[in-house]
Amino acid sequence: MVQFKGYTCSLCHTDYDPVAVLYTCPQCGGNLDVVLDLEKIKSKFQKEDLIVRREDSLWKYLPLLPVSDPGGEGTPFRIAGWTPLYSPPGIKKMLGLNLLWIKDEGKNPTASFKDRASSVVVARCRELRAEIVVTASTGNAGAALAGMAAAVGQKCIIFAPKNAPPAKVAQLLIYGAKVILVDGNYDSAFDLTIEASKEFGWYCRNTGYNPFTAEGKKTAAFEIWEQVITRLPESAKPLCVFVSVGDGNIISGIHKGFKDLVALGWMNKMPRLFGIQAEKSAAIANAYIADTDTITPVESTTLADSISVDLPRDGVRAVRAARETNGQYLTVTDDQIISAIAEQGRYGIFTEPAGATAYAGLKKAVELNIIQQEDPVIVVNTGNGLKDIKAAMMAVTPAPIIEPTMSSLKKHLKI
Amino acid sequence: MVQFKGYTCSLCHTDYDPVAVLYTCPQCGGNLDVVLDLEKIKSKFQKEDLIVRREDSLWKYLPLLPVSDPGGEGTPFRIAGWTPLYSPPGIKKMLGLNLLWIKDEGKNPTASFKDRASSVVVARCRELRAEIVVTASTGNAGAALAGMAAAVGQKCIIFAPKNAPPAKVAQLLIYGAKVILVDGNYDSAFDLTIEASKEFGWYCRNTGYNPFTAEGKKTAAFEIWEQVITRLPESAKPLCVFVSVGDGNIISGIHKGFKDLVALGWMNKMPRLFGIQAEKSAAIANAYIADTDTITPVESTTLADSISVDLPRDGVRAVRAARETNGQYLTVTDDQIISAIAEQGRYGIFTEPAGATAYAGLKKAVELNIIQQEDPVIVVNTGNGLKDIKAAMMAVTPAPIIEPTMSSLKKHLKI
Repeated sequence: MVQFKGYTCSLCHTDYDPVAVLYTCPQCGGNLDVVLDLEKIKSKFQKEDLIVRREDSLWKYLPLLPVSDPGGEGTPFRIAGWTPLYSPPGIKKMLGLNLLWIKDEGKNPTASFKDRASSVVVARCRELRAEIVVTASTGNAGAALAGMAAAVGQKCIIFAPKNAPPAKVAQLLIYGAKVILVDGNYDSAFDLTIEASKEFGWYCRNTGYNPFTAEGKKTAAFEIWEQVITRLPESAKPLCVFVSVGDGNIISGIHKGFKDLVALGWMNKMPRLFGIQAEKSAAIANAYIADTDTITPVESTTLADSISVDLPRDGVRAVRAARETNGQYLTVTDDQIISAIAEQGRYGIFTEPAGATAYAGLKKAVELNIIQQEDPVIVVNTGNGLKDIKAAMMAVTPAPIIEPTMSSLKKHLKI
Repeated sequence: MVQFKGYTCSLCHTDYDPVAVLYTCPQCGGNLDVVLDLEKIKSKFQKEDLIVRREDSLWKYLPLLPVSDPGGEGTPFRIAGWTPLYSPPGIKKMLGLNLLWIKDEGKNPTASFKDRASSVVVARCRELRAEIVVTASTGNAGAALAGMAAAVGQKCIIFAPKNAPPAKVAQLLIYGAKVILVDGNYDSAFDLTIEASKEFGWYCRNTGYNPFTAEGKKTAAFEIWEQVITRLPESAKPLCVFVSVGDGNIISGIHKGFKDLVALGWMNKMPRLFGIQAEKSAAIANAYIADTDTITPVESTTLADSISVDLPRDGVRAVRAARETNGQYLTVTDDQIISAIAEQGRYGIFTEPAGATAYAGLKKAVELNIIQQEDPVIVVNTGNGLKDIKAAMMAVTPAPIIEPTMSSLKKHLKI
C-alpha cells in the first residue's frame, strides 16, 4: 500500500491524506480520485514486469492498486477479473470492422463487471478492519459484494428496495449476506446505508460514494491495455472503448485506469471512451450533449435495470471520461438493446441488457459513421445474460410445438 | 486426427473403423469407446509438451482428442474448458480435509460442464460436413450445443419436451438455435431426434448415443490431472473425484480421460471416482450397489433437473467408472442437495442443484468416514447457480422488510 498517496476531489480539487477521509469530499461532497505515488511505482516496476506476471485475475495489477495484498487465495475472490476477449469473425464482417473485440465481464465470479469494484472494496475493508461491509443495491453490485465478501469470510449487509426482483435477492442470500429490504426506493436504501455505516462503523461500498470502487473498475482498463493495446501496431488509430453507462462509475473507473497508464508513461495514446446510455435513462448523455457538468436527474424507465438510474452518482467524472478522450455519448432505445441481445446471442455470446447496450451503441456509431472500418474497437459486455432471463425472452420468438412423430416434423419443416 | 483409430463397443467389445459407424454399436446397441492411437501420440508428444501449452481452454489437449483443429478462434467456442479451481480454507476446515479442490464448471461459456461435450461434437460435425447438428435436451446440453454451434456458425436444432422451463428454452433461442418443442417427454424427443438425424443426414449429439460427448467430457480429467495430480507429492493417496451422475456420461467421460493418461504412461495412480446421485434418481447407484451391469429404470422425481433421469443412457460405463477405480456410488436427498447449495454459497460459490449434489456426496462420505483427512479430494461443480434460481430460492430464508429509517433499522438489529 506504499503506492497509495491520498485523494484529490474531482470537483473542488482539494487534496487529502489517506487517513483524512473515507468517502466523498468533506468540502463539497464531490467524488474523490485516489492518488497513487507514481514515482514510487515507476522505481519498482516496469510495464513488462506486470505483463509477464502469471496471475489470471485483476490481482496481477496489485502494484497499481491502493490496497495491500488482499489474501483470499483459493477462493472466487482471487479470480475476479482477467476476463476473456472474443473477436468473432462474423460480427466483424457484419459491422465492417477490421479490429473488434468483445470483453466478456459475465465471466467474473458473480457474473458481472461489479466483481472488480467489490473485490477491491473488500480488500480495503479488511485493511480498515471494519467488522461489516455494507452497500445499497438492487442487483449486480450487491451480488458482487456479497459474493466477494463471502469468499474471504467478511461479514456483509445489503440494503435493497423491497421491490427488488426476488431472483436477485436470492443470489444475495445464497452468498450468506444479511439482506434487509426497505419499504422505499433505491435512493432511500442508499441514504440509510450511509447513515448506518456512519453510526455503526460499517464500511460502505455505495457506488459514487466510496472512492475505491473506481479503483477496482480501473483494472478493466489495465486488462484492455495488456490484452489489446500493447499488441496493436504503432500506426493503429486509438482504441475506441464502448461501455454502457448508468451511474457513471464504470466509465469513470476505466478512464482512471487509462490515466494511470499514461501518467506512468506505459501508454502513449489515450483510448477514446464512448459512453452508451439507454434513451430512457440518459442523465449523463444529456449533460454531455448540453456540454455541462451539471447532471439533471431523469425519471428512468429503461428495462436495462443495471443502468436504470434517475440521479447518477458519478455523473461529472463520467461526462469528462468521454469529453477528455475524444469519445462521446450515444443513446439507444430499449428495442435496440433487446435486438443487441439477440444479435450477439446468434454468435454464442449471451449478455444481459446493460451489457448489450454498449454493443447497440457501437452499431449506432457504425451506422452514423462515427466509427469506421479502421478504428480498433472494444465493447465491454458488463454482465451475463443468465442475470436477466426475462429480458432474454423479450428478444426471441416462441418455439413451435409439434407431435413427436416424423410426419409432424416433416410437416413443420415443410419437407 | 491421425490419432483417431476407431471404436470399441463398451458392451460386446467389437472393434470398428472410424468411418464404419457414427453412433452406437450396430451389433448390440452399446455405447462405443473412442480408441486413440496411443503409440502415435507418444511418439509425437510428451506430457511436458502439453503442460507448457499456453491455451486456456480444453483445446490445449487437442493432441489427445479424436478431432482435428476445430477453428473457432476469437469465439466462446474456443474458451470452453480450463475452468478454475477453488480450495477454500473455510470449507477445508469445516470438512476436516487437508487437500480439497472445487472445480467450477459454471465458468464455461454457457455456464455448465456440457460445453466440453458440445464443443468437441461441433468440431466433429464440421469434419463430417453435416449441415445441421441436433440434440434432444431439456437444459444444459441443449444450451451448450446451441452456444457452441452459434459461436462457429454451425446450424443447430434442439428438440425439447414442451414442458421444458421457459427460461431454459429462452437460452436456446438466444443462441439462434431452431427449437422444436414436442408434445411428449424427453424420451420421445430423444427418439425423434435419432430418427430425424438418420433420415435427414443431421449429426446427432444425443448423450449416451454419440461417442464424442465422452471424448469432450474427458478433458475435465486432463485438467484435473494437470491442475492437481501432477502437483501432488508422490506419497499422496490417490485423488478422490466427486461428480454428480444423471445419465452417466460425465463420470464415464472423466474415467475415459484418466484411462487415456494411464495408457500413455503419463499418470501412474488411477484416481478414485465417486458418483453421487440424487436418491430420487438413482438408477446407476442402484446397479452399483446391486453389483450388476443391468440398469433398471426408475421414476425420477428429484428437483436437481440436470441429473433427473429415468433411464440413464450411459449407465453401464458409469457403474464401471466407480467399480474399476476403487470409488463408489452414494446417494443424497433433495434436502441435502439444497443445503449444499447454501453451504457453498456462504463461501462465495454459487452452483445449481446438480453441481451441489457432488458436494453433498462428499459431506456424506466424510460423515461415513469413507473419506478421511489425508485423502486428496476434488469436487466437480457442474453448473452455475444462475441456471436455476428457483432451487436457490429454496435454499434461503426470505429477507425482512423495514421502514427506511435508522429507528426501524435499530429495532430490527436489536441495537
